[in-house]
Amino acid sequence: MLTYKAPLRDIKFLMNDVFDFQKHYKDLDNGENADAETVDMILQGIADFAENVLMPIYQSGDEEGCHFDNGVVTTPKGFKEAYNQFVEGGWQGISYPEEYGGMNLPMSLNLIKSEIIGTANWPWSMYPGLSTGCINTLMQYGTAEQKETYLHKLVEGSWAGTMCLTEPQCGTDLGQVKSKAIPQEDDSYKLSGTKIFISSGEHDLTENIIHIVLARLPDAPEGTRGISLFIVPKFLPNAEGEVGERNGVSCGSIEHKMGISSSATCVLNFDEAVGYLIGEPNKGLKAMFTFMNTARIGTGIEGLAHTELAFQNALPYAKDRRSMRTLSGVKDPEKVADAIIHHADVRRMLLIQKAFAEGGRSMIYHAARYADKMSQGVANGDDAEFEKWDDKLGFYTPILKGFLTELGIESAKHGQQIYGGHGYIKEWGMELIARDARIATMYEGTTGIQALDLLGRKVLLQSKGKIIRDYTSSIMRWCGEYALDKDMRKFVWALTKLCAEWNTLTVRLMLMARKDREIISAASDDFLMYSGYVMMGYHWARMAAVAYDKLENGGTEAPEFYTAKIQTAEFYFDKILPRTSGHAEGMVAPSESMTAMAIENFAFLD
Amino acid sequence: MLTYKAPLRDIKFLMNDVFDFQKHYKDLDNGENADAETVDMILQGIADFAENVLMPIYQSGDEEGCHFDNGVVTTPKGFKEAYNQFVEGGWQGISYPEEYGGMNLPMSLNLIKSEIIGTANWPWSMYPGLSTGCINTLMQYGTAEQKETYLHKLVEGSWAGTMCLTEPQCGTDLGQVKSKAIPQEDDSYKLSGTKIFISSGEHDLTENIIHIVLARLPDAPEGTRGISLFIVPKFLPNAEGEVGERNGVSCGSIEHKMGISSSATCVLNFDEAVGYLIGEPNKGLKAMFTFMNTARIGTGIEGLAHTELAFQNALPYAKDRRSMRTLSGVKDPEKVADAIIHHADVRRMLLIQKAFAEGGRSMIYHAARYADKMSQGVANGDDAEFEKWDDKLGFYTPILKGFLTELGIESAKHGQQIYGGHGYIKEWGMELIARDARIATMYEGTTGIQALDLLGRKVLLQSKGKIIRDYTSSIMRWCGEYALDKDMRKFVWALTKLCAEWNTLTVRLMLMARKDREIISAASDDFLMYSGYVMMGYHWARMAAVAYDKLENGGTEAPEFYTAKIQTAEFYFDKILPRTSGHAEGMVAPSESMTAMAIENFAFLD
Repeated sequence: MLTYKAPLRDIKFLMNDVFDFQKHYKDLDNGENADAETVDMILQGIADFAENVLMPIYQSGDEEGCHFDNGVVTTPKGFKEAYNQFVEGGWQGISYPEEYGGMNLPMSLNLIKSEIIGTANWPWSMYPGLSTGCINTLMQYGTAEQKETYLHKLVEGSWAGTMCLTEPQCGTDLGQVKSKAIPQEDDSYKLSGTKIFISSGEHDLTENIIHIVLARLPDAPEGTRGISLFIVPKFLPNAEGEVGERNGVSCGSIEHKMGISSSATCVLNFDEAVGYLIGEPNKGLKAMFTFMNTARIGTGIEGLAHTELAFQNALPYAKDRRSMRTLSGVKDPEKVADAIIHHADVRRMLLIQKAFAEGGRSMIYHAARYADKMSQGVANGDDAEFEKWDDKLGFYTPILKGFLTELGIESAKHGQQIYGGHGYIKEWGMELIARDARIATMYEGTTGIQALDLLGRKVLLQSKGKIIRDYTSSIMRWCGEYALDKDMRKFVWALTKLCAEWNTLTVRLMLMARKDREIISAASDDFLMYSGYVMMGYHWARMAAVAYDKLENGGTEAPEFYTAKIQTAEFYFDKILPRTSGHAEGMVAPSESMTAMAIENFAFLD
Repeated sequence: MLTYKAPLRDIKFLMNDVFDFQKHYKDLDNGENADAETVDMILQGIADFAENVLMPIYQSGDEEGCHFDNGVVTTPKGFKEAYNQFVEGGWQGISYPEEYGGMNLPMSLNLIKSEIIGTANWPWSMYPGLSTGCINTLMQYGTAEQKETYLHKLVEGSWAGTMCLTEPQCGTDLGQVKSKAIPQEDDSYKLSGTKIFISSGEHDLTENIIHIVLARLPDAPEGTRGISLFIVPKFLPNAEGEVGERNGVSCGSIEHKMGISSSATCVLNFDEAVGYLIGEPNKGLKAMFTFMNTARIGTGIEGLAHTELAFQNALPYAKDRRSMRTLSGVKDPEKVADAIIHHADVRRMLLIQKAFAEGGRSMIYHAARYADKMSQGVANGDDAEFEKWDDKLGFYTPILKGFLTELGIESAKHGQQIYGGHGYIKEWGMELIARDARIATMYEGTTGIQALDLLGRKVLLQSKGKIIRDYTSSIMRWCGEYALDKDMRKFVWALTKLCAEWNTLTVRLMLMARKDREIISAASDDFLMYSGYVMMGYHWARMAAVAYDKLENGGTEAPEFYTAKIQTAEFYFDKILPRTSGHAEGMVAPSESMTAMAIENFAFLD
């Protein structure tokens, strides 16, 4: 019963009116490939595929789930056909170099693609999504030979890839990884160990699967400094570069999960599997972390995707379902009751979803431009350029991942709530969105890890607060331009106040942390959410400014489109931004509130 | 993998130290039945049953779900055996009169029972739970003959009951009910229509099911004033009072749901089913509403139950799972990493759960004493007494239902989050708690309905704000006693400030509502959550005061028990109460933020 239409008008508003992607593309080596016409064609093609091929198999895929039989994983009905169409359309390689069969378009288009296909069918989109991680690793760290061997097939999509990090005893704390890699005489390695939670670890969509695996060399130092990265193909490529001998990696089982049940989450057993070192020995974790930004933004997109899907499906129900009369007077006198969209509380939930979807998309698109530059650094083998943009992106990553995925859960919840009891029934699909959205705050680093990365690492350790000073200065400069603008001043005054507060809070936490390191963990979640709400407020103010401008000077859209942007911004500032108050107060609470209780006194159940 | 221990020490702390239930019971007609020894015995018996019989079939029941075959519903393995044990123990009737086979204990013990069995296995507990609604209806509105015919079996538990309200076109807005009741010559009626979402509508646990059904008489006025209440047994009782002829009510299907899959949610088709009017014609909705308070508090208990269960199962995992080192220094030097319970952010989540569970329980127990008085009014046929206490309870009901169920969802989410990726895997059970908890904000009136009931009906319409003035005065009087107490003053100052704010906000909303009725709906969710947080703050302050007193003057528990109460109160005031700020700001936002957008401008997807 769920439906999806790619929000192309909102997407183009951001690409053309808010961020001017065409101007940005002019600065990129591969930017000329992304002229306006090509971008339109790509967007339309992805939208068609998502709406007509992926959406129809989303609910049925969840119901059927993946099948596991003696090491073989079969994806639900229609998944393979959809994947074949995806490969035929060349969609896997749109942002990879032409020498490997890609279209060499900017990476931002790949992120925009992820949103559209992910909104239509998140679990399906994980299959090509995981390949991306594998491709990125090979692009940046593979030898010429490794690239030649694997990238053609992966970029084409006829082979898929995975990232094998987690083991039963550790997820976040990869220093505990135990998988072993024993060097062989021919420069290969034999890998043994168990990896769990491997998305797309085994499936029937492609003829081969290339695993990127974290493991330890025999002489490796303990902890995170002794982890290396290996390529372990399911089938070893033969001399012709085609599928050869079966390797010693097998799927032991698939997980039964709350949601994303059509995405195979695998236990992979490596039993003297042949592997090849990629990158430098013992530097695997560092290499891994260079992809964290893109992988985590990819998960941030999941938050956006589920927000958008919940909104798109709550809206028609709210227009259709009738209950009671509206407090301000009868709205549909000829009907037995008013449509529930007339009730302010229902509008509140819809507007939260709308504000989160369009605000979140703006945040992602802003970051996507950094991803373009970063990816250009990789393509040119220019480490300095890569690192410069990777660093810049590093501030946004934990916010996009941590904050937007939390909003995805909240939006899915509102979607169910608007349906009343029907929101709990499988047939309608709203509960599926809620179940699928739930994973996003757990994988690719929990919200707690994002929060610690933001406050502990990026804000306090690496920049001593400078990153917040810089970011808020840029907001305040922007606000300054509108200080006397009668339309915009309500937004910019509120934002300016928040910028000042954000700095003050950062300084307070910095001072507190000097004496009490635990305050960083204690405050981190409030700091993350606070940062997210303010950042999204800035994006809404910018969108409102563009909308006012278009209303005055004419735009490609009807006036109602821009008016709705302004009204959503107003709603966001009136009803959502106040949430910052609680987080501001909460984050400076003494860490003792959390640390004082002795472990054995949390419960008295005996 | 889930486990449960009834938190008897916390329960007794509330019953004995905080609220002095023994003193309260002395004022009740049936209070002498509830001497300390009996209460202990009852609690222990329920705890044993919940821990050993219900918990072991909770996860398996979810996995198996209910079976539907041609009108017959079969509950999962073990459900019937557990139900038989429940009947044998006499647990269904503990708070009903001895003349019908009950134990005639105060109604509060029934609520406490609901928490314990509901925490162990919420969906199972819905079978006897729905019977309670049916019993209460018969107790208050049944004729002597109707009581005699049905109450013995229902109180015993060998027959079960339901409440049949919702139809496909309406849930909340019962004025739209279409089911028809045609009078017959023998004083019976023939009912026809379709009811949906009927919990326990059909099952194999009992030999008969007694449906209480809302339907319209042929000459009934339109809307809510034309609804009557009927008794429709699955099998008509024969002359001996045993199961006789099959009636024309049948189960058309059961719903496939996000959770509570072992609780049968039925479509019931009434096809000229024989029914008997209960109460006055066309006064069915009013009769129904007299049970809303208890039914809704019962759902509030679900919020508490899922909070408690999520907490009890997150705690051992947080002690067991090891990841990283704690920011304030290594905590488990002999281990590969520190247990995650040492991280302040993990403690934050555990303490939220703990604060919500123990605070929520305190709020329920407070209200349970009103339920005792109310139920005494029913037993004595004293309408005035019933209404007096029903009115008092009416202020607490939307908060207990609306607020505690939202907290249940949040607590279950933290439970999953503490498990990281394992929180998403069925085997661990944390995801089941989250799926089951999700229904609680939708049935028995959504959170939006509770919010409207609280702000629109109870606070503004019925009392013009007096109810808030009275409640906050009582808090402030209590605070006054501790104003100079060095331990307590941090709590009472914060509470006093909030009480003042709560009144100011109420007055502001009242003034706004004079010109703009829609503000009531627009502000209602923020007002509900604000009220809940302040009320829970008051309960935590009271528990802290008792704990300080026991620490000084000696109590039945070890000092650590009381210290933990105080530490949890401190956590609540430091980290949770700040949430009121955002709600305070948000609730007085202009309703235009929600109402301004034209319906057709919510999305531009064509």
